[in-house]
Amino acid sequence: MYITVWNEYRHEREEEFKKVYPDGMHGAIAEYLRAEGFDVGTAVLDEPEHGLTDEVLAKTDVLFWWGHCAHEEVSDEIVNKVYRRVMEGMGLVVLHSGHASKIFRKLMGTDSYDLKWRESGDMEILWNCNPGHPITKGVGDKIILPHEETYGEHFIIPEPDETVFISWFTGGEVFRSGLCYRRGRGKIFYFRPGHEAFPTYYDPTVRRVLKNAAIWAAPEDTEKLTYGWVPATV
Amino acid sequence: MYITVWNEYRHEREEEFKKVYPDGMHGAIAEYLRAEGFDVGTAVLDEPEHGLTDEVLAKTDVLFWWGHCAHEEVSDEIVNKVYRRVMEGMGLVVLHSGHASKIFRKLMGTDSYDLKWRESGDMEILWNCNPGHPITKGVGDKIILPHEETYGEHFIIPEPDETVFISWFTGGEVFRSGLCYRRGRGKIFYFRPGHEAFPTYYDPTVRRVLKNAAIWAAPEDTEKLTYGWVPATV
Amino acid sequence: MYITVWNEYRHEREEEFKKVYPDGMHGAIAEYLRAEGFDVGTAVLDEPEHGLTDEVLAKTDVLFWWGHCAHEEVSDEIVNKVYRRVMEGMGLVVLHSGHASKIFRKLMGTDSYDLKWRESGDMEILWNCNPGHPITKGVGDKIILPHEETYGEHFIIPEPDETVFISWFTGGEVFRSGLCYRRGRGKIFYFRPGHEAFPTYYDPTVRRVLKNAAIWAAPEDTEKLTYGWVPATV
Amino acid sequence: MYITVWNEYRHEREEEFKKVYPDGMHGAIAEYLRAEGFDVGTAVLDEPEHGLTDEVLAKTDVLFWWGHCAHEEVSDEIVNKVYRRVMEGMGLVVLHSGHASKIFRKLMGTDSYDLKWRESGDMEILWNCNPGHPITKGVGDKIILPHEETYGEHFIIPEPDETVFISWFTGGEVFRSGLCYRRGRGKIFYFRPGHEAFPTYYDPTVRRVLKNAAIWAAPEDTEKLTYGWVPATV
Repeated sequence: MYITVWNEYRHEREEEFKKVYPDGMHGAIAEYLRAEGFDVGTAVLDEPEHGLTDEVLAKTDVLFWWGHCAHEEVSDEIVNKVYRRVMEGMGLVVLHSGHASKIFRKLMGTDSYDLKWRESGDMEILWNCNPGHPITKGVGDKIILPHEETYGEHFIIPEPDETVFISWFTGGEVFRSGLCYRRGRGKIFYFRPGHEAFPTYYDPTVRRVLKNAAIWAAPEDTEKLTYGWVPATV
Repeated sequence: MYITVWNEYRHEREEEFKKVYPDGMHGAIAEYLRAEGFDVGTAVLDEPEHGLTDEVLAKTDVLFWWGHCAHEEVSDEIVNKVYRRVMEGMGLVVLHSGHASKIFRKLMGTDSYDLKWRESGDMEILWNCNPGHPITKGVGDKIILPHEETYGEHFIIPEPDETVFISWFTGGEVFRSGLCYRRGRGKIFYFRPGHEAFPTYYDPTVRRVLKNAAIWAAPEDTEKLTYGWVPATV
Repeated sequence: MYITVWNEYRHEREEEFKKVYPDGMHGAIAEYLRAEGFDVGTAVLDEPEHGLTDEVLAKTDVLFWWGHCAHEEVSDEIVNKVYRRVMEGMGLVVLHSGHASKIFRKLMGTDSYDLKWRESGDMEILWNCNPGHPITKGVGDKIILPHEETYGEHFIIPEPDETVFISWFTGGEVFRSGLCYRRGRGKIFYFRPGHEAFPTYYDPTVRRVLKNAAIWAAPEDTEKLTYGWVPATV
Repeated sequence: MYITVWNEYRHEREEEFKKVYPDGMHGAIAEYLRAEGFDVGTAVLDEPEHGLTDEVLAKTDVLFWWGHCAHEEVSDEIVNKVYRRVMEGMGLVVLHSGHASKIFRKLMGTDSYDLKWRESGDMEILWNCNPGHPITKGVGDKIILPHEETYGEHFIIPEPDETVFISWFTGGEVFRSGLCYRRGRGKIFYFRPGHEAFPTYYDPTVRRVLKNAAIWAAPEDTEKLTYGWVPATV
């Protein structure tokens, strides 16, 4: 399985966040997934074609996506290519502020960018609502993150195919924070935590979820079906 | 529309809870629904046939169900009759500890009795996850209940057809607290709040949800379809 | 309730189809809905702004959409305005070849344009898979259309929120032909039949479905929720 | 992975059906699954405890279930044990007339026994509605069975988590014939074909579906979560 971790990679070039993620969030995630035995590449916004060339996309089984302040700088052409690959079966793991990315909005068909938020370093507790689901393997009852950005409902999304995590925040909010969708032949997992200011992607249980999600989202071998004009079957 | 509010009615005969609900929780709910213009009856466990005679069930459009300590005293025969009416289209609003009732378990097909709980008078905040849904009409962003029993995930239920509310509790828990299901021709709404020790069913927004749920769950006019042996259609 | 029936209105200007629908398919549908007591307007592609001015969209509760050969001529600006109104709660009834329209594709997030098809005048039988659903009121077991265009699975769509009809065709195909989705605050119903060559929209049971769908898709009164930055709730 | 194929095994003791399935349908299915490398046992109604002892159930990862004329002879105790194992994660593949079995009804919570049927040897075409799903691997567009019993909608079931196959029958009927549900930690696949009079379970593509379903339904490693009284988390 080949995984590409895509990151906007703007915040982590600033001193404040570089301290947390010296190699960017993509670097932290890729380093972990490699240690777990996956074949992993990275790609960032400021590379040509955002690092998502036809060749890279063609070989990618699961694409991780983190974006925040520069969603609008992602070219529609690349978004359409990513969409095309999801329809073909490529898995997509959308992280944190990626809820507002072009690709997630295109796949959801709703105003998924809108929600409540607050950067106050609340504690986040992600509750396991789906034991027995491959994405919660090894997770136990909950994941506690001492400090995270807060998101609050209402999250404008289609009713999830599977609800995996729901988050609690100190300040009183809740958020559906682990969600599965199937679109075309592709599987999509949205996973909420991961603000640039906090070392969330070093948390061992968060990492376990990322690994589980990659395995879950990997494409099945699929065959071509017939579309378009057909003669009568009988 | 005719509504029957069914209650186990054991707790509220004790002094401690009688102070909160002098006429029982069914009394408090029925009184409100009547004031809103509905035709409402009540029924309790200790009446003959638990107050759910064939006549009562036949005329009931929406049945509210509150039970807790005496689920096992509800006769299987009555449960089967209620189930039969849900299949035919009767709406069912299951309240609070009714999650462990025979009828809810029968309709869900899962161990819906199991969850985390704590009677510590935590604050509960029910967040509206479904604006535009008829059950959240007039509710706004959230319902704040200063003191309630706490429930925590994991709640063992089928993936809901529609998630309407999710609750936050002071102690760190979350719970899917407003859930819609369609089973047979009937609509089912599970609504979490309503511990016997707290005046939850007097809260005006909670009451609004009860009213909305009754309207939502009311049966459509339905026709008989054909089941069993059929000749070829063409 | 105000209904706008939108039609591409290209086919029915040709002699062959004008015989079937002298006033266009929108005319046939609007005439029926008016006779049923609804307030109905029509709009077609070749009008300025495709007939969907801000004023028209603002007052429309439910929009019917029929398009086929000219999907690409619909301006993205108007599609975005229709999308905006669906998010706000406007109902959308997408008819037949509208499965490939820009607006349906945008709302589904999948390649919903692709399916099997054949213009061979097969019989279509739409089976009621959802008795008790408001859209099947008065429909009975099935709708038989002596001649229709054939569509066949696989239809590339998100798993439907509710499956209402499934179609059988003489030539051996099946198709999910009545499907409900909720997106944002809006309700969407896809209804398959309605090829321009056949008098489908004069069929009394098909008409009953159109009426039922309009009633089902009508928006609820909804309130504004809070989005964006929020202070702590507790 | 250990698979148990359970069969009522009454029909195939009669001459008429013994010709088709000399070793019973369970024998035909088990023989195939063994050849594919699975560890497979069988169990039938007339064995003590219906062949489903605690030991057998404890080691079973996926249980296949075929029953028809003797559903009521299956003891409630065994049904409850099977249910318990599904809640824990055991996969369940319910075949054909198993739609009316006690275990399937218990898990669905609806009148799943009721549907249209006809033993007229119609052709059945199962259409692949879910390419990319593990259960349709190697299946292609469709499965054609020259002769089968006919089932017709309406099938009284909860809206499926995933619709995998829909069947067409010569006589004009359609049926949702491949359906996925998740209940508790268990995965359930309903697969329609398999009347005792036809050699359906020798069909290579039907067999491929059985194998795919076993792999799909196999349990994940799961951990215990906490249920019951809990102290505050924060």
